[in-house]
Amino acid sequence: MGLRGENLLGLRAVRGTRAALQGVDPVSGQSLLPAYGGATQEQLDQACELAWRAWAPYRELGAPAHALLLESIATHIEDLGEELIDRAALETALDAARLRGERARTTAQLRMFAQLVREGRHVEPRHDPALPDRAPLPRPDLRMGHMGIGPVAVFGASNFPLAFSVAGGDTASALAAGCPVVVKAHGAHPGTSELVGRAVQAAARQTGMPDGVFSLLYGADEQIGAWLVAHPRIQAVGFTGSRGAGDALARIAASRARPIPVFAEMSSVNPVFVFPGALRERARAIAAGFAQSMTLGSGQFCTKPGLVFLLGDEGADEFLDTLERQLQATRTAALLSAGIAARYRQATQQACARATLRTLGAAPAPDGTRAQVFVLGPREFAEQAAWREEMFGPAAVVVRGASPGDLAALLDELGGQLTATVVVEPGDHALARPLMRTLETLAGRLLMNGWPTGVEVCEAMVHGGPYPACSDPRFSSVGTLAIRRFLRPVCYQNMAEDLLPDWLQRHTPRAQAPTDKEGARA
Amino acid sequence: MGLRGENLLGLRAVRGTRAALQGVDPVSGQSLLPAYGGATQEQLDQACELAWRAWAPYRELGAPAHALLLESIATHIEDLGEELIDRAALETALDAARLRGERARTTAQLRMFAQLVREGRHVEPRHDPALPDRAPLPRPDLRMGHMGIGPVAVFGASNFPLAFSVAGGDTASALAAGCPVVVKAHGAHPGTSELVGRAVQAAARQTGMPDGVFSLLYGADEQIGAWLVAHPRIQAVGFTGSRGAGDALARIAASRARPIPVFAEMSSVNPVFVFPGALRERARAIAAGFAQSMTLGSGQFCTKPGLVFLLGDEGADEFLDTLERQLQATRTAALLSAGIAARYRQATQQACARATLRTLGAAPAPDGTRAQVFVLGPREFAEQAAWREEMFGPAAVVVRGASPGDLAALLDELGGQLTATVVVEPGDHALARPLMRTLETLAGRLLMNGWPTGVEVCEAMVHGGPYPACSDPRFSSVGTLAIRRFLRPVCYQNMAEDLLPDWLQRHTPRAQAPTDKEGARA
Repeated sequence: MGLRGENLLGLRAVRGTRAALQGVDPVSGQSLLPAYGGATQEQLDQACELAWRAWAPYRELGAPAHALLLESIATHIEDLGEELIDRAALETALDAARLRGERARTTAQLRMFAQLVREGRHVEPRHDPALPDRAPLPRPDLRMGHMGIGPVAVFGASNFPLAFSVAGGDTASALAAGCPVVVKAHGAHPGTSELVGRAVQAAARQTGMPDGVFSLLYGADEQIGAWLVAHPRIQAVGFTGSRGAGDALARIAASRARPIPVFAEMSSVNPVFVFPGALRERARAIAAGFAQSMTLGSGQFCTKPGLVFLLGDEGADEFLDTLERQLQATRTAALLSAGIAARYRQATQQACARATLRTLGAAPAPDGTRAQVFVLGPREFAEQAAWREEMFGPAAVVVRGASPGDLAALLDELGGQLTATVVVEPGDHALARPLMRTLETLAGRLLMNGWPTGVEVCEAMVHGGPYPACSDPRFSSVGTLAIRRFLRPVCYQNMAEDLLPDWLQRHTPRAQAPTDKEGARA
Repeated sequence: MGLRGENLLGLRAVRGTRAALQGVDPVSGQSLLPAYGGATQEQLDQACELAWRAWAPYRELGAPAHALLLESIATHIEDLGEELIDRAALETALDAARLRGERARTTAQLRMFAQLVREGRHVEPRHDPALPDRAPLPRPDLRMGHMGIGPVAVFGASNFPLAFSVAGGDTASALAAGCPVVVKAHGAHPGTSELVGRAVQAAARQTGMPDGVFSLLYGADEQIGAWLVAHPRIQAVGFTGSRGAGDALARIAASRARPIPVFAEMSSVNPVFVFPGALRERARAIAAGFAQSMTLGSGQFCTKPGLVFLLGDEGADEFLDTLERQLQATRTAALLSAGIAARYRQATQQACARATLRTLGAAPAPDGTRAQVFVLGPREFAEQAAWREEMFGPAAVVVRGASPGDLAALLDELGGQLTATVVVEPGDHALARPLMRTLETLAGRLLMNGWPTGVEVCEAMVHGGPYPACSDPRFSSVGTLAIRRFLRPVCYQNMAEDLLPDWLQRHTPRAQAPTDKEGARA
């Protein structure tokens, strides 16, 4: 498929006339063709109006049709074959094996949401039958279910060009909820976005969806995202990215004439707590696992373990020595973009300038960045708030010399997290138990003896957490739970069956099977 | 019980030293003793810190203890007897029968939430068992459930001194979720608030709750609410009141260093659509029902039907003539406060100054306010945005002369609603069906042939809707669904049973009953 450099407005493709953006090979620094003209405000307005007008016919098609669309998108993405992998690798410097895995995750989650809505479990129907003889007042018949919130704005993420971008989890869950989607492509992988966007467009065409169920817009600056979130037809926002950008979008959404909900997944250091028994018993294995997890994907996972507390002394030197050897043997890839690499260099240079006990470093990547670990005492950690901030890329902080009793004070200012991990031996459990009760107030997912990179897409997953991990801790952006971000409950009181919506009728259990309709309604 | 005029900080009572407020009898205009000194910032800080420190021990007590607290609160409120009804009637001008009904609703919803959490249904546990042999990577064991979000700020509402105030639905659902609560008393019923607050305090003492699970603060100005929502220990907000105040609190919450979710229920005109067949067949009965619903509680329900579309001509005169006679025979009570009465007078005077076809009015209430209905044509309605705004009190708008085909355009600017109602005969269903599909995007609850006042407290109720009805359309403030506002999901990965929280263990089905623990964990 030849790349055309166009915005996708529903079923059409049009050239944007605002400032153009181009992909860049992060390894060579070379710009990639084609150029993507930024969408104008009029084009954005068309996309949002199309989405609005598509909403009613799209939801009337019902969940079975939404499931077919999602499955067709998955197939069309697979049909792109190696072209998609090659382009994504070129634009992001992520290796092909990782990208193939990410593609498999992307198509699996499209099919997971198809299955979810086909079963109708997202509707969560409830029914309180009428109680005509109740005193002092009769109870009416009340049926409730969940429907889509309306057109959703989705922002592509730099670090998951497939699984969190054009047809990633936000788009999949919104389309599954019955919501049209307008995607703002991430500027770091425009060609990948076009390929996937055209796959979605082809799927929408093939499954006969109303025009406007999906649009894809490009912009070289922040204006396009700001317009999108401010547009009155947009009813919710899904975003994965930096805290600054997420905060900015949340502010725009809150200052609309009619504010809308934003789910922004932003910033997390994903603390790990190595308890004394575990450190004593298996310092080397833990260090090796940590080195691997923190450098995986060049440390560009939202769930990278960026902060490790060594809660004992015995084994701490062995941990650090092993970690140093592991890092020296690690050569990470170039970071996702020149901007990310520049911010990473700045963050690690600033960290080097602060007081540390020791700094461990790896060999430089092709873009000159390198993995680094800053080793601190608890006092250094407590005194500098900067140590609590995420460094996006292969950097981490190790705090040694804190005891479990110090943690309450050290964690009080930490802020919300996507994950928190305890590394324990059976003998550590008694010490770990009170910490667990604190960690569950801080993080969306708690792990024992594992590493937080690698987010399973399933029923029980939570990828979320209190601010700044996310803008709203009550939701998840991964797993079937993610669909709740884009659903709202609606109640029907004493409603005749022929005025109930199909989506609720399909999922409301009949009152009693053997009686006739009128009898059952009494 | 003698009223003391104090703030309740956990289990203590302290006198506030900022500007005092007093209740006022809305009928006589006389101030009521005692005076309630406003809480200082230090006192508010104490309440929030107490709530924060109470959170861990409170949630460790578990849902059975939370249920006991809720039931004890209900009993203590009942034990206040007629003293509570008398004081509430004095402060609000609501009649005793209404207040007794509201008290029954308040205690019923406390017991409903007790039952809900005792059954553990709020946890919504999910479990993805480990798949150790899955290729290319094994799946870990993942368990998920919902826990409380943390200390919740609750704002008392003027129009429900019991059911939406100190121990109303927000407090009940937050306590049920395992969240301590700091209530800001509504200034229009401080004595009622103290009585209920002391009942909650007594229940907390009797059931052995940690100090700080509940506090009650007074303030004569807006400062106290602003401080409360801005306080770093507060994790969520429940509010029912005006759009201006709700918007202001949402802005404060969004501009915190760590933003938190706000559920604000604010403003709704609750449109009613009378279809031609129904208008022709039973204009009088519909007019009588409407007059009763819009003047119930002096029109001070969030769900007051404030906008009626007569979609036919036949029967329209009969509807209006009946409505006029009904209104003339209606003498509403004084409004809840002098401030509300003043705003009502201003809103209705401004309405009188705009172009109308006809204005219907009732006899004046003791405070000089009177029920009014403004009859418009569709052009008048479309031309003046002010007709789409809620007039809090016994006023409504009737639009005659619009056809069902005009509605899409008329509704496009209406904004979110708590309710929308269709009044139909069987022959109207075909006309009503497309409108239903629009109304469900606008409102949280849709009714057929009923009146929206009267909100059932049950499983299937939705009291919410898109902005400006609510700040977040994905939640409800009435019914068991209301607890979701104050819950967040947490996932546990490969967690040993003795590190799982009790609340999740209690509700996670064991993998296989007959195998031993280790075997079941493989």
